[in-house]
Amino acid sequence: MIMKAAFQGEPGAYSEEAGQAYFDQAEMVPYESFPDVFEAVATGACACGLIPIENSLAGSIHQNYDLLQQHNLYIVGEYTLRVRHCLIGFPGTELADIRHVISHPQALGQCAAHLRAMNLKSEAVYDTAGSVKLLKANGDKTCAAIASRRAAQIYGMLILQEGIEDNPENYTRFLEIAPQARMPKGNVKTSIVFTIKNEPGALFNALRSFAERRIDLTKIESRPLVSKTWDYLYYIDLIGAVDEEPVQSALEELRSSALMLRVLGCYPRFHDELR
Amino acid sequence: MIMKAAFQGEPGAYSEEAGQAYFDQAEMVPYESFPDVFEAVATGACACGLIPIENSLAGSIHQNYDLLQQHNLYIVGEYTLRVRHCLIGFPGTELADIRHVISHPQALGQCAAHLRAMNLKSEAVYDTAGSVKLLKANGDKTCAAIASRRAAQIYGMLILQEGIEDNPENYTRFLEIAPQARMPKGNVKTSIVFTIKNEPGALFNALRSFAERRIDLTKIESRPLVSKTWDYLYYIDLIGAVDEEPVQSALEELRSSALMLRVLGCYPRFHDELR
Repeated sequence: MIMKAAFQGEPGAYSEEAGQAYFDQAEMVPYESFPDVFEAVATGACACGLIPIENSLAGSIHQNYDLLQQHNLYIVGEYTLRVRHCLIGFPGTELADIRHVISHPQALGQCAAHLRAMNLKSEAVYDTAGSVKLLKANGDKTCAAIASRRAAQIYGMLILQEGIEDNPENYTRFLEIAPQARMPKGNVKTSIVFTIKNEPGALFNALRSFAERRIDLTKIESRPLVSKTWDYLYYIDLIGAVDEEPVQSALEELRSSALMLRVLGCYPRFHDELR
Repeated sequence: MIMKAAFQGEPGAYSEEAGQAYFDQAEMVPYESFPDVFEAVATGACACGLIPIENSLAGSIHQNYDLLQQHNLYIVGEYTLRVRHCLIGFPGTELADIRHVISHPQALGQCAAHLRAMNLKSEAVYDTAGSVKLLKANGDKTCAAIASRRAAQIYGMLILQEGIEDNPENYTRFLEIAPQARMPKGNVKTSIVFTIKNEPGALFNALRSFAERRIDLTKIESRPLVSKTWDYLYYIDLIGAVDEEPVQSALEELRSSALMLRVLGCYPRFHDELR
């Protein structure tokens, strides 16, 4: 039986595209929202899920960090997808036929200069892959959608242009989530979340645990917790395994000063293909 | 003559609401996109602009950081708005009449649990304030929009419910941008952006400059630059004036090891109302 992997979006979404590249073999199962994806993995409806966690242009997806903290699920893998937006129209149409373009606001924004240069009007709809579905349903041959190559294939539509994003450095990082933590060895990454008191030097002291052991941080982000105390939440990704030195003792040290510390998961590092 | 301040969005947008609270007196001028806002300030069409830079739920708006780096404009002020979403319908309607709701996908997402509990269907449109405009135009009295109190007032519509966001800790931080840097004294903040080599401990060494001088950081965020070298870009906000000690010497020290360092601005700290 092929493993089921949950993703958010319509068939043809970038999450599905990422899943097909990341998993050796998996049936990608679409869900409407991120909470639904977590629910599907938590209840066992799917063996795992693939969620976007950050985009090089749009930043971190805090909702998915929140959901990771709310569920007893773990990060067990990562994958980074180069986002290549396609301009998709009806078979038989040409670029010169197109007058306006529909897609998700973020995709339209990421292609704004290109669309302006081509003098195309744009209209926002809910989803990238959904915009292709919508285009096919409304039958307007002067209209094109912006979505993934995969979305064009699924709906039997034509790719008029590929790679139309204004900034080619458009990458989305995905995390595989599963009910059981894994303890991989070798070239692995560990993701943690912690809160510390809002005091001068508090972050510096927290980072000292890693720096003194020459542990490499690949991500750090502060998120203000706008409560009475104005404490801060930090996300950190670091290189190393949680149950091996020097990471193990660094986390013990940090745990003694942090208000809260949670290891979100330990997983093989993805990087080779992008270098 | 009243000062003109540029913002992105339709009249009634949260940026306009923030501007009316932040500026003593200003004519808020709407622009379609963030690049248009920067352009309006750069060309002098407006004396200043007010741009969102981060939301407590959705994170940093990287596009505006990029635009800050691309233009010779400076941050001269900050304001934090508590985002209170209103459910807006036609005058004369009641909550029980409403069957579906339109708004920007982010606003719908931030009210998702509330809408589910009320059994209301949601449909995404381009803009929050724009959804009120759209509602008024289409005349459907079973439909409501989610937007600011201000948007309801502008279009003469009725607020059926206020504060319907699932998470009340929904704050957006705005920055005032202007062509000339200012050098305020007292309780001020400085925003910087810098890049450092991707080496173990590099970030720790960069932060040492601040920690050893007991400078308080209120924000830190890494942003991967997915290029050949995999360098990292960092955003930091710190407490203190750029031309005073200890910040001045800390920045000098950081400059000697950073590949790039830019001071985005120095401005009076906004915080009292939220504490």
